[in-house]
Amino acid sequence: MTKMKVALYLIRRLKELGVKHVFGVPGDFNLEMLDLVEDEEGIKWIGGCNELNAGYAADGYARVNKMGALITTFGVGELSAINAIAGSYAEMVPVVHIVGTPSTKSQAEGAMLHHTLGNGNFRIYMKMYEGITVAQTSLNPKNAKSEIDRVLRECYIKARPVYISLPTDVYGEEIEVDLSDDLNLSYPENPREVEDAAINQIVKEIQKAKCTIVLADVGTTRYSTTKELLDFVEKTGFPIFTSPMGKGVISENHPLFGGTYIGNVSELHIRQEVEGADLILSIGALKSDFNTGGFTYRVSTKKTIEFRNDHVKIFFAVYENVSMRQILPKLTSRLVQHQHGSKRIRTPYLSQPPIEEINSQQITHSWLWKEISSKFFKPNDIIIAETGTSMFGLMDVRFPEGATFISQILYGSIGYSIGATLGAALAAKNNEIKRRVILFVGDGSLQVTVQEISTIIRNNLDPIIFILNNDGYTIERMIHGLERKYNDIQPWQYCKTLEYFGATSAKGKKAKFTKI
Amino acid sequence: MTKMKVALYLIRRLKELGVKHVFGVPGDFNLEMLDLVEDEEGIKWIGGCNELNAGYAADGYARVNKMGALITTFGVGELSAINAIAGSYAEMVPVVHIVGTPSTKSQAEGAMLHHTLGNGNFRIYMKMYEGITVAQTSLNPKNAKSEIDRVLRECYIKARPVYISLPTDVYGEEIEVDLSDDLNLSYPENPREVEDAAINQIVKEIQKAKCTIVLADVGTTRYSTTKELLDFVEKTGFPIFTSPMGKGVISENHPLFGGTYIGNVSELHIRQEVEGADLILSIGALKSDFNTGGFTYRVSTKKTIEFRNDHVKIFFAVYENVSMRQILPKLTSRLVQHQHGSKRIRTPYLSQPPIEEINSQQITHSWLWKEISSKFFKPNDIIIAETGTSMFGLMDVRFPEGATFISQILYGSIGYSIGATLGAALAAKNNEIKRRVILFVGDGSLQVTVQEISTIIRNNLDPIIFILNNDGYTIERMIHGLERKYNDIQPWQYCKTLEYFGATSAKGKKAKFTKI
Ligand SMILES: Cc1ncc(C[n+]2csc(CCOP(=O)(O)OP(=O)(O)O)c2C)c(N)n1
Ligand SMILES: Cc1ncc(C[n+]2csc(CCOP(=O)(O)OP(=O)(O)O)c2C)c(N)n1
Ligand SMILES: [Mg+2]
Ligand SMILES: [Mg+2]
Repeated sequence: MTKMKVALYLIRRLKELGVKHVFGVPGDFNLEMLDLVEDEEGIKWIGGCNELNAGYAADGYARVNKMGALITTFGVGELSAINAIAGSYAEMVPVVHIVGTPSTKSQAEGAMLHHTLGNGNFRIYMKMYEGITVAQTSLNPKNAKSEIDRVLRECYIKARPVYISLPTDVYGEEIEVDLSDDLNLSYPENPREVEDAAINQIVKEIQKAKCTIVLADVGTTRYSTTKELLDFVEKTGFPIFTSPMGKGVISENHPLFGGTYIGNVSELHIRQEVEGADLILSIGALKSDFNTGGFTYRVSTKKTIEFRNDHVKIFFAVYENVSMRQILPKLTSRLVQHQHGSKRIRTPYLSQPPIEEINSQQITHSWLWKEISSKFFKPNDIIIAETGTSMFGLMDVRFPEGATFISQILYGSIGYSIGATLGAALAAKNNEIKRRVILFVGDGSLQVTVQEISTIIRNNLDPIIFILNNDGYTIERMIHGLERKYNDIQPWQYCKTLEYFGATSAKGKKAKFTKI
Repeated sequence: MTKMKVALYLIRRLKELGVKHVFGVPGDFNLEMLDLVEDEEGIKWIGGCNELNAGYAADGYARVNKMGALITTFGVGELSAINAIAGSYAEMVPVVHIVGTPSTKSQAEGAMLHHTLGNGNFRIYMKMYEGITVAQTSLNPKNAKSEIDRVLRECYIKARPVYISLPTDVYGEEIEVDLSDDLNLSYPENPREVEDAAINQIVKEIQKAKCTIVLADVGTTRYSTTKELLDFVEKTGFPIFTSPMGKGVISENHPLFGGTYIGNVSELHIRQEVEGADLILSIGALKSDFNTGGFTYRVSTKKTIEFRNDHVKIFFAVYENVSMRQILPKLTSRLVQHQHGSKRIRTPYLSQPPIEEINSQQITHSWLWKEISSKFFKPNDIIIAETGTSMFGLMDVRFPEGATFISQILYGSIGYSIGATLGAALAAKNNEIKRRVILFVGDGSLQVTVQEISTIIRNNLDPIIFILNNDGYTIERMIHGLERKYNDIQPWQYCKTLEYFGATSAKGKKAKFTKI
């Protein structure tokens, strides 16, 4: 047993989870905790311009690095970040949010401190976090060890954010800890009998089916099932399609990859293949509006087997607590000799449509995305798309080998992508291979969180940022208010962005875009 | 009776409350409501770069104009603004927050729409608002009229924010309304017997006292009691002091004004006068840490009569539901013939200390604030101070006649002041006299919300902005981490701010500041 400060123990646990960068903004209720972060080897403090952006950065970081962390100050800081954490919750991203809070004594007294609402209620902010985190805790020296371990485990296992309140008089208290004792990160075991029953049934259905396809979605990445899925399709030879959020689950150059299925919005041959299958194995689905072409999936429950993190559903029958990560490998081994009918010739998802003529100054979406995907993307790129025409434009673009796709297709909070770029670019540094980080962001969204480009510069990161300057909220104009003033924005000198935010050798790239 | 769309009725009621500008950011769940705002005479849509800033703007607007309004979109928008609304709640600022939400049908079905958490829970965001607003409602055609009237009244009477959820299928529904029927904005009457008892007791105490002073605070402004207070002191001749948050309650050139009392931080003669009094009439007090010199008020309950919005407290005895606004005029009339002992010679709060020598390039705080207050301020200025050295620096600076002071001394969220400047500058246009808007903001705080300078430019406003460039979070260094890197920030090209954000004839003023 060793004695260790509460905050240091938390920092060490974060390191154990692979967190090498912690995002946030200082405030008088967290400053002393930041000393410990700054002094600790192997973990780095990344101060953001504001908490929302820092929260987005922690999210982007976690999408590349499996886990992210954010430190804010009581009230003003945590509430500024709440929209980022809600996004992490919706999109299943594990972010640990640590809030430096007033001393236990001040809280008990209901003191009228700055950053309070003036009514002595110190629990209110944490309460707001209840709906958007999977675990919350307020630390004291007695519960610190077990509570830290509990909430970090929840964060990891459920792949959703957690909330830790760390009062100023607690962070420095010494607690007894056993450093050799690893965090328990084992997933709960599937219930054996239920799983067996499901396997038998699934094998039967696959044997019966004439044409089985796999439709993979975001849950596969979030619940670390990509390897299991790859083994499964490679053994069975089933063609695999992804949803927009599922992009990157499998290499888009894989011979079994059939394309991105987005309901009515999909390319015709993809629709035909997916909708024509008589058995669909849906892995980690998230059927939100934008992820399904506006709810136009034609994938009937009667022919779909759903694999989820916490259950399997065969047509209408739910097998509870059977996780896809554990059942898939078992199916893979059972299916060696069983596969039939899945051998078939399918339309390959191969060629990019021919590159259109460019009419002098005009940059159109159809030109841009083809050009980018055929000539610009490289293996292992981290591709980030902001909500808006960027996200919709990239949905069915062919991605390179080893690409990671980052976008908030469910939550869709504009401005997210700038913070996420900061986080992803830092996380990419933890990788052995050099990965480019490429962002596509609209002018309207850029304005939401532009200042975080300063933090990107400050940390010597070099993402490539495409600003789609189309004079305002174009995607909204498509929905409503084509000629409305509320969809206009103030034009900025975008080319001077790097210079303004303090890049010493600023090379603002001139980009010409046009209304679409 | 007339037929009118729900949203239009709401807009008309806002106009009735004096709201001429509505802040916010469009989103697909509020676009059609914005059509109505854009088309309505006498009210203007002010699109912000992001919702937090728009929320701050609505708050700044309400501080000058008595009432502010904000429109955001479901989830992503409203949660981005939540920290601004929490600030309005803490600081007692009436802001109406209208959120465009998905259709009643989608909500009932729990559809997996963008901006949801993906779990079908559509009530979660509104629930988060419960602790930071005094009334919440979700409109439907049946309840719309009465609910709109109810929450707007609450907002006005309690001077705190309210929350209105307006689903996309409700805003355009026609309801029957009576346009001649005004909003009921009358304050509840003080209970007569309780009030009489309080008055008698107070008069007795005043007669007994040898030296009575008035200590006025922010509640006086927020609950519209400045006129009543002025009458009271002018009739009684009691000297009046204010807290930092109370600055502006009375002209600081008024012969009865004694200065700003901030506990131990006050100038000595002010401390002596306040702490030496044997009866203190405390009006609208808010005894938070920063407002009381870190809880160093030496104002014993035994000699204090507290006047609040919802009660009067004579030493230890509470007289419930007796509001200061109604009791003060009655006291004023009772005290005509009764005042004794209050006639005394007091140290005047008059002269500014002599202006120090400036050593060439250095701008020090002691020089700056004296220089500004003696040479730069003009009558009717709206003076805005960001949390940080700006706020602390301005706390005891003499303000000009008719000045309004805007700062978050209780809530203290940095970045607030840029949005508030936008709001205040627009509200100032509603005034008959031309008022200057002057902002003092630190470099660290500026970075939080800098983009709203773009909206200031876009709306042709001309506030004067002082950026205190002292290389980072100076106020934090004073508290902890003097040499710590986490208190550093990225240097920007502040002089190019106006240019970058699209001012056509950008005149970035060069300012030289130095570390203090
Ligand atoms: C925080 C937040 N506020 C508002 C919205 C509503 N919204 C969705 S897309 C969009 C416009 C994005 O414009 P831009 O980034 O310029 O992209 P474009 O479609 O023009 O390429 C807006 C305002 C949102 N999704 N998130
Ligand atoms: C939203 C928010 N985040 C963090 C803080 C903590 N905080 C208080 S003052 C301050 C530094 C302000 O620095 P600056 O604006 O440069 O003012 P200075 O004191 O240097 O003049 C910080 C980070 C806060 N009050 N609000
Ligand atoms: Mg745009
Ligand atoms: Mg500073």
